[in-house]
Amino acid sequence: MSSIGVFDSGVGGLTVVAALRRRLPGESILYLGDTARLPYGTKSADTVVRYTQRNLAFLASRGVKAIVVACNTASALALDRVETSLPVWGVIEPGAQEAARVSSGSVGILATETTIRSGAYPRALSRIRPELEVQGKACPLFVPLVEEGWEDDPVTFEIARRYLDPLLESGVDTMVLGCTHYPLLEPTIRRVTGSRIQLVSSAEEAAAHVAEDLARLGLRENSTDAAGEARVDLCMTDSASRFESMARRILGELETPPEHVNV
Amino acid sequence: MSSIGVFDSGVGGLTVVAALRRRLPGESILYLGDTARLPYGTKSADTVVRYTQRNLAFLASRGVKAIVVACNTASALALDRVETSLPVWGVIEPGAQEAARVSSGSVGILATETTIRSGAYPRALSRIRPELEVQGKACPLFVPLVEEGWEDDPVTFEIARRYLDPLLESGVDTMVLGCTHYPLLEPTIRRVTGSRIQLVSSAEEAAAHVAEDLARLGLRENSTDAAGEARVDLCMTDSASRFESMARRILGELETPPEHVNV
Repeated sequence: MSSIGVFDSGVGGLTVVAALRRRLPGESILYLGDTARLPYGTKSADTVVRYTQRNLAFLASRGVKAIVVACNTASALALDRVETSLPVWGVIEPGAQEAARVSSGSVGILATETTIRSGAYPRALSRIRPELEVQGKACPLFVPLVEEGWEDDPVTFEIARRYLDPLLESGVDTMVLGCTHYPLLEPTIRRVTGSRIQLVSSAEEAAAHVAEDLARLGLRENSTDAAGEARVDLCMTDSASRFESMARRILGELETPPEHVNV
Repeated sequence: MSSIGVFDSGVGGLTVVAALRRRLPGESILYLGDTARLPYGTKSADTVVRYTQRNLAFLASRGVKAIVVACNTASALALDRVETSLPVWGVIEPGAQEAARVSSGSVGILATETTIRSGAYPRALSRIRPELEVQGKACPLFVPLVEEGWEDDPVTFEIARRYLDPLLESGVDTMVLGCTHYPLLEPTIRRVTGSRIQLVSSAEEAAAHVAEDLARLGLRENSTDAAGEARVDLCMTDSASRFESMARRILGELETPPEHVNV
């Protein structure tokens, strides 16, 4: 059976893998973390397009049946500009659709600098509900805080407060976690926002879209004992050991150690 | 007249450029920021060696007379493993020499994860003064905090306290700022350490070594009006705009905008 290919610049996309596993326990997943070139979130569009094209080609060469671009930056900048014959999903459109569904009028986007600068979320939201107010907020310290393992820490709470307060003061009712690292910060972000704000995870929504579309395309794994055979294989473009420890934190035990690949 | 070539993974090496300008106002400098691939500090040795070799070749192709590897990670991992016919300096050996000179017995190293893991500072220090006690402390949030522009901020003070307290408690008398971004955090680090700790900047010490060795090698610019003609040219491998604004913060006004190059 063919795998679903998933890639991200690093480990953040593993939150999409975790969401896919919950929804599609019978599907195998081949994950590529482009750790030699991370982060994408501070790089230019041309650079991100070039890296994305290479990553898609790598996953296609391994025989995947479909690909999830589990990186908001790559989804924002590259999804319309790369070529592949496989079904491909990004994480922006699913996140935007859910935010448009639940918002009562004012949406805040939390993301990397490059995703914010791309304007991809405001564009996607205005196609769905043109009357929505949308404000973006770049949160460049969130990814390194997660990678430090300080998801639940007073320093992280203070930084989240700093980033989120302007959005709260201007009355947003919904916030999109527009970077696949950010679901790991959800408890801290929730403590800053209180319970009245809707939090939308682009990782979770992307997994929901993939599950639905695979069924519609007839690509869903239907064998009854598939769940027993389904596996997650991890590849990365750099061999630094932090990838493996982060992967364990997000996915639990790994079936095989990550494979180092040149892409 | 030929320039001095300087490279770093990003903008941090500009602190070495600023130190070179103060010591050698008559020298022109060609700077390469490998911003498409930053940060190096979380990547593996093989990856860093490959990038370093390419950067040296680029600077040599532009006709520089000598090269400063103004990146602690590249100095730690790649300096012994790359080939070039030009004089090359790293930032580890100069920082280690100064720390060995001023320490009364116990040295702390503040650096990226990869530099700490490489053991390059303890090795260099033990060659000079084998009896020194050396402790490394990886500070992965320092670079993104500088890039956020929060050098002087209560959050940064708190994070610095978190990183430095274990070193202070174990009695170090000297700390090496073992990443070229860190001199920008010196005032905050100084507030954490108090005045009894010696702070050694690898950027400043590297500039001192370059000035001395260029004179010794007969490569120093001697024309009396050279200071009027000396210029700093910046190249970067990614076109994102944050490079330019960081460069202005470190160097003041730029003579020409940074040039985007493919390396």
